[in-house]
Amino acid sequence: MSDLWWPGDHRAGVLLTDQALLDAMVAVEQAWLDVLAEAGLAAGTQLPAVAPDALDPAAIESTGNPVPTLVAHLREASGETWVHRGLTSQDVLDTALVVCLRDAVARVRGDLDRAVRRLAGLAREHAATPMVARTLTQHAVPTTFGLKAATWLTGLLDARHDLDHLDRVGWPVQLGGAAGTLSAVVELDLDPRQARDDLAARLDLAPAAPWHTTRRPLTRVADALVSVTDAAGRLAADVATLSRPEIAELSEGHGGGSSTMPHKANPVLSVQVRRAALAAPGLAATLHLAAATQVDERADGAWHAEWATLRDLGRRTVVAAAQTTDLVEQLQVHPDAMAATLATADDAVHAEQHAVHEVLGRDPSAETDHHDYLGAATDLVRTAVARAEERP
Amino acid sequence: MSDLWWPGDHRAGVLLTDQALLDAMVAVEQAWLDVLAEAGLAAGTQLPAVAPDALDPAAIESTGNPVPTLVAHLREASGETWVHRGLTSQDVLDTALVVCLRDAVARVRGDLDRAVRRLAGLAREHAATPMVARTLTQHAVPTTFGLKAATWLTGLLDARHDLDHLDRVGWPVQLGGAAGTLSAVVELDLDPRQARDDLAARLDLAPAAPWHTTRRPLTRVADALVSVTDAAGRLAADVATLSRPEIAELSEGHGGGSSTMPHKANPVLSVQVRRAALAAPGLAATLHLAAATQVDERADGAWHAEWATLRDLGRRTVVAAAQTTDLVEQLQVHPDAMAATLATADDAVHAEQHAVHEVLGRDPSAETDHHDYLGAATDLVRTAVARAEERP
Amino acid sequence: MSDLWWPGDHRAGVLLTDQALLDAMVAVEQAWLDVLAEAGLAAGTQLPAVAPDALDPAAIESTGNPVPTLVAHLREASGETWVHRGLTSQDVLDTALVVCLRDAVARVRGDLDRAVRRLAGLAREHAATPMVARTLTQHAVPTTFGLKAATWLTGLLDARHDLDHLDRVGWPVQLGGAAGTLSAVVELDLDPRQARDDLAARLDLAPAAPWHTTRRPLTRVADALVSVTDAAGRLAADVATLSRPEIAELSEGHGGGSSTMPHKANPVLSVQVRRAALAAPGLAATLHLAAATQVDERADGAWHAEWATLRDLGRRTVVAAAQTTDLVEQLQVHPDAMAATLATADDAVHAEQHAVHEVLGRDPSAETDHHDYLGAATDLVRTAVARAEERP
Amino acid sequence: MSDLWWPGDHRAGVLLTDQALLDAMVAVEQAWLDVLAEAGLAAGTQLPAVAPDALDPAAIESTGNPVPTLVAHLREASGETWVHRGLTSQDVLDTALVVCLRDAVARVRGDLDRAVRRLAGLAREHAATPMVARTLTQHAVPTTFGLKAATWLTGLLDARHDLDHLDRVGWPVQLGGAAGTLSAVVELDLDPRQARDDLAARLDLAPAAPWHTTRRPLTRVADALVSVTDAAGRLAADVATLSRPEIAELSEGHGGGSSTMPHKANPVLSVQVRRAALAAPGLAATLHLAAATQVDERADGAWHAEWATLRDLGRRTVVAAAQTTDLVEQLQVHPDAMAATLATADDAVHAEQHAVHEVLGRDPSAETDHHDYLGAATDLVRTAVARAEERP
Repeated sequence: MSDLWWPGDHRAGVLLTDQALLDAMVAVEQAWLDVLAEAGLAAGTQLPAVAPDALDPAAIESTGNPVPTLVAHLREASGETWVHRGLTSQDVLDTALVVCLRDAVARVRGDLDRAVRRLAGLAREHAATPMVARTLTQHAVPTTFGLKAATWLTGLLDARHDLDHLDRVGWPVQLGGAAGTLSAVVELDLDPRQARDDLAARLDLAPAAPWHTTRRPLTRVADALVSVTDAAGRLAADVATLSRPEIAELSEGHGGGSSTMPHKANPVLSVQVRRAALAAPGLAATLHLAAATQVDERADGAWHAEWATLRDLGRRTVVAAAQTTDLVEQLQVHPDAMAATLATADDAVHAEQHAVHEVLGRDPSAETDHHDYLGAATDLVRTAVARAEERP
Repeated sequence: MSDLWWPGDHRAGVLLTDQALLDAMVAVEQAWLDVLAEAGLAAGTQLPAVAPDALDPAAIESTGNPVPTLVAHLREASGETWVHRGLTSQDVLDTALVVCLRDAVARVRGDLDRAVRRLAGLAREHAATPMVARTLTQHAVPTTFGLKAATWLTGLLDARHDLDHLDRVGWPVQLGGAAGTLSAVVELDLDPRQARDDLAARLDLAPAAPWHTTRRPLTRVADALVSVTDAAGRLAADVATLSRPEIAELSEGHGGGSSTMPHKANPVLSVQVRRAALAAPGLAATLHLAAATQVDERADGAWHAEWATLRDLGRRTVVAAAQTTDLVEQLQVHPDAMAATLATADDAVHAEQHAVHEVLGRDPSAETDHHDYLGAATDLVRTAVARAEERP
Repeated sequence: MSDLWWPGDHRAGVLLTDQALLDAMVAVEQAWLDVLAEAGLAAGTQLPAVAPDALDPAAIESTGNPVPTLVAHLREASGETWVHRGLTSQDVLDTALVVCLRDAVARVRGDLDRAVRRLAGLAREHAATPMVARTLTQHAVPTTFGLKAATWLTGLLDARHDLDHLDRVGWPVQLGGAAGTLSAVVELDLDPRQARDDLAARLDLAPAAPWHTTRRPLTRVADALVSVTDAAGRLAADVATLSRPEIAELSEGHGGGSSTMPHKANPVLSVQVRRAALAAPGLAATLHLAAATQVDERADGAWHAEWATLRDLGRRTVVAAAQTTDLVEQLQVHPDAMAATLATADDAVHAEQHAVHEVLGRDPSAETDHHDYLGAATDLVRTAVARAEERP
Repeated sequence: MSDLWWPGDHRAGVLLTDQALLDAMVAVEQAWLDVLAEAGLAAGTQLPAVAPDALDPAAIESTGNPVPTLVAHLREASGETWVHRGLTSQDVLDTALVVCLRDAVARVRGDLDRAVRRLAGLAREHAATPMVARTLTQHAVPTTFGLKAATWLTGLLDARHDLDHLDRVGWPVQLGGAAGTLSAVVELDLDPRQARDDLAARLDLAPAAPWHTTRRPLTRVADALVSVTDAAGRLAADVATLSRPEIAELSEGHGGGSSTMPHKANPVLSVQVRRAALAAPGLAATLHLAAATQVDERADGAWHAEWATLRDLGRRTVVAAAQTTDLVEQLQVHPDAMAATLATADDAVHAEQHAVHEVLGRDPSAETDHHDYLGAATDLVRTAVARAEERP
């Protein structure tokens, strides 16, 4: 599996691929068939795995979504006519999307956890490593690299909070039938609430009222994923900036080479993370737009716009999280360079301190006592690290 | 106050205007001055209110943000040189933004609460009002208008959950000083943590570590606001569709006239709500992008891109929420038209039922017993209404 | 080739795939090698075709773009060390992107041409088919289906104008060397202008100054592609609306079925076209953003964000154009239904006419002469059709 | 006029304000009244100027657009009942939008012309000022500041090409009547084509078929405006980067101060230009989306979403163009710093040259002849400058 157009895409492996979607859809059909079997309607048939090339793309296009073609295939392959009875295409596709997204989010979270650990370590380790703070590109006052790492950490913790929130809210099963009334389910004499709970339990999802046209369950995932790429992008922007040769306070562990300049060490992970951070907000906006243009009991295009957009947003976030983790784990910190910059910037970085002393009417000669002027940096690092450790 | 370019803008009143921002910034400076006064540094000076035209726009542009010009004005007007000592521009502007956004969100929530009540009422009232469900524009199975109202309600409840989540997370004060280290605060011999808590308390905000370059507090607000316009847009799309004269199952209470066709009753509230739903996702995406391109200890453009974007997103959401509330409060429901459509659609809407009976091997003559075929609609309405009532 | 997440994707075939990009990159390297051979530097080596799985994705990721890995592969496979000498990765990748985009645009144009012909035919054929015009969802005055078709046609003609403009501006080769100075080309004693013209000619591209960081050549393509999906989406919105069963003035030739409701005829082409129209603007915005955040002589992420975004925008536009063509070629027009709606809407659609007569002080009994009230509809159809035929 | 949320907004003056829109709408009504007067229908009444606060915002909201309220006001104020007869709201508002946009574009073009002149001057002046080129943040090969200026220049020239293209295509009048058929115009016994041409001529606009729902005329403007902010943002990114104190190869003429650090010189113009470049793509995307979701003969929300979006995009581009012009006119270039960086980077920047020599089998000692290694930089500067001068 390779994607020349998005280097690093292979890191996402099978997540949110055609095969993953197909596996998830078959799992949903199987779980539902098991519900029907338990109700004495269907036999206990095992559905076969399906490969993407078993389904005719023209057939899929002719119904606008892959479920009818899959159902026909499954019925024929298994000889089980009860496959899909009571469900609608959107039940299967939405539930499968949720399963695929949950897997992707789990992967992202695993990577965030590693990155969080490393950043907490960096923050602690460099709590007393002074460097210059920069605002609007210019030298401001002193800070520490520990505090910078703590700031990155806070971004990732905020993103992790959002991912955790997805679990707290729950990954919802979709079961509404043709138009969200569970009509066929009831017609089959199933108890709709129990059938739904049973289906959810078999897929380890949360029961939920049908959400065919209320799409916050998906935009919530999108918002959380973008909060990951936002935090990763913010971190990568610092690494890219501070690994400029004129600054050289940071460098990526393994710089990427060039096709013509052999010794060049490009911050390739930062570059690729920044790429994702630029592209993700537009994808999330498309998902909100799809949510905002839902209509009737199934939308005429807005639903269809979600699938590939979620896939792209999901895979790219997985890749960005993995690259961010590598980036922080391999990051080279150069305290000497930081100290050298700070020494050069001496006048600039003490301007504020002088101004404070002036307003206090203090003796400027006393300022030598305040040569580091680091404010509450150490305490702020401690707070961020403590927050990183809060999680069980 | 009028905005010809966004009819209905006057509904947002002073929220997120120049004056509101200025009032909030003065309130922040006052609260901080009070902190300094309590520490024995400043006198208990009261700062004057400031009107936008008191500040020179060219001066504001020359520093890139309005705070330095405001501070100069306040110092001169009050004679108090302690104004702003220890703060940085971003502390004042970000905190003021949070205050302004909180006010806007409170307004939105008030409107949502009214809309929720009305939709819960509609859902209950029409729990047994049959209508045809439509999927991909075509007639599907029967549903009830009560369930449709319950679906809209669920969208608004999801959005209200997001707004409530903002309160649970807290509206954070910003206090970091020049570069997020609270350097000047410490230099003034204030306890940074206590100063921050004190400032937050005076503004009724939550204490928070400096978030100068970790912008989830703002993108979280943006995501919640878009979840409101998404839910409102989804509802308005149904109203616009179902008030088409060929369908006529719903109509706005007061249709808007036309400049040339006197008797026309346009669904003007739906139209204006839809407008907001189309424009909001792009604004939220810009805020995520700003979050993703933060760099250093204060970003060189990404910070500045946030202000007007938040203002526009905020005001438009306030207007959309108010219009949505009017829309649902004045909505005319036409059960007769719904029944007539359903009668016309008879064959289509029972196709699924026939298919189920076929697979069950049932006698088709028994189908007359199932003429409404409404599945679990009533139960789904009950669940949504119960959720609306959960809130204290 | 199938994409379950974007039904209809197979229509784009090999366009903008991994293989297409690879073929184009090899073609660029070959053309350049031929330039070098003609200059007496390289031998006349023929480079082999390369399959995507010949390149290690981890290697590609380690340099952030696929060119260095491809170059290493080509040098080894061909034994020709002159491969790529004088070029930079961006020269190869950007030029290959242009080649791939040109192919995709050519395909889109071919489909637009067919759709234009069909719409011109529909406009002519139905120039006197009256129907009601609708504004803000409500009945306004009479119009003709011919004029509606002419309006769709105008949208496609505007889009075709944009695609043609791309040809007029030219599809630019990229040749700048390591940092846009053509340093290595000059060092190889080649005449840089002649080398560039020669490379361009071999690839049938336009010579151009290096545009490594001035990306209007790409955003111009993006804008043109979005103008296609905009026009297609606008047309599809009408078809989806007018094929609602309550209106039934249009229908798709082959409606798509449902997984549970066998006789349902969904407007599946319209739905899929609308999907593309919702997703495309966000992709084009990402490309503008990438253009806007270029920096230095090669950007640190903004370049990388372009590739997959262009691929997705390109393929989806190809699919949408093909589906739009099928849609209009198979479109069923129902003049009887149009006439019936118009009859029902009689009062409404003549309100304007009455108002005009009132202001003119005319005798209302004279109005029977104006029963169709079609204004300049016929002339407007003629103008649009003439524009469609203008093109050689 | 001030906008605290978007510093520099005052630069756009009255362009695209409420007053400008109102003036333009009155001008359209006046021009149309003159057409009616010439046809002997109306008297030669002069309409009064109208101030925004003369119109009731609630009345405007009740019809969803400002035209009906304006028309009522004009009829009452002038006593002329012929005001607006034959027009529809969209005719007036769209035409007024075009007038306002044309004025804004003219202002942008004036600023671009100044910036182009200055950049052509800088490119010429510094054609032999060596500096290091940077790719992916790292030192690559040598270049000249003249070539960097020429690159910025190319970006602005591409944008100017787009603005000029708007003139070539023409600024279209909107005249379609209630639903694009010119029904009332014909009913008034006017020749519709002549009436349209006459109206267009009076407003110095281009005649055009009604484009009520084919919105390329507006998205074309949006795309051109974004191409301006893209080019400006790309330039500003370089200035912000190269004015970092560790690099210091460029600086803004007048740096902006800080509220706490008196001696700081922030690149405030670059920062504000970058802000616009981040925000503009999302606004243009909203306009494309509005174009893509047009439906019927007047859209139910998509039209309404355009107005404020165009206003915001227009004003921000005006401000960005003005700031960019100041930025380049005041830009300080530091050739000594450039030379110093280049000296430090010596090994890195000659790596490519060594590699070329190696492949050529040249004697490395001959390399001293190639110490500047500037490739075709001078020629590329000349080409860009010539293009700047092409325009009459």
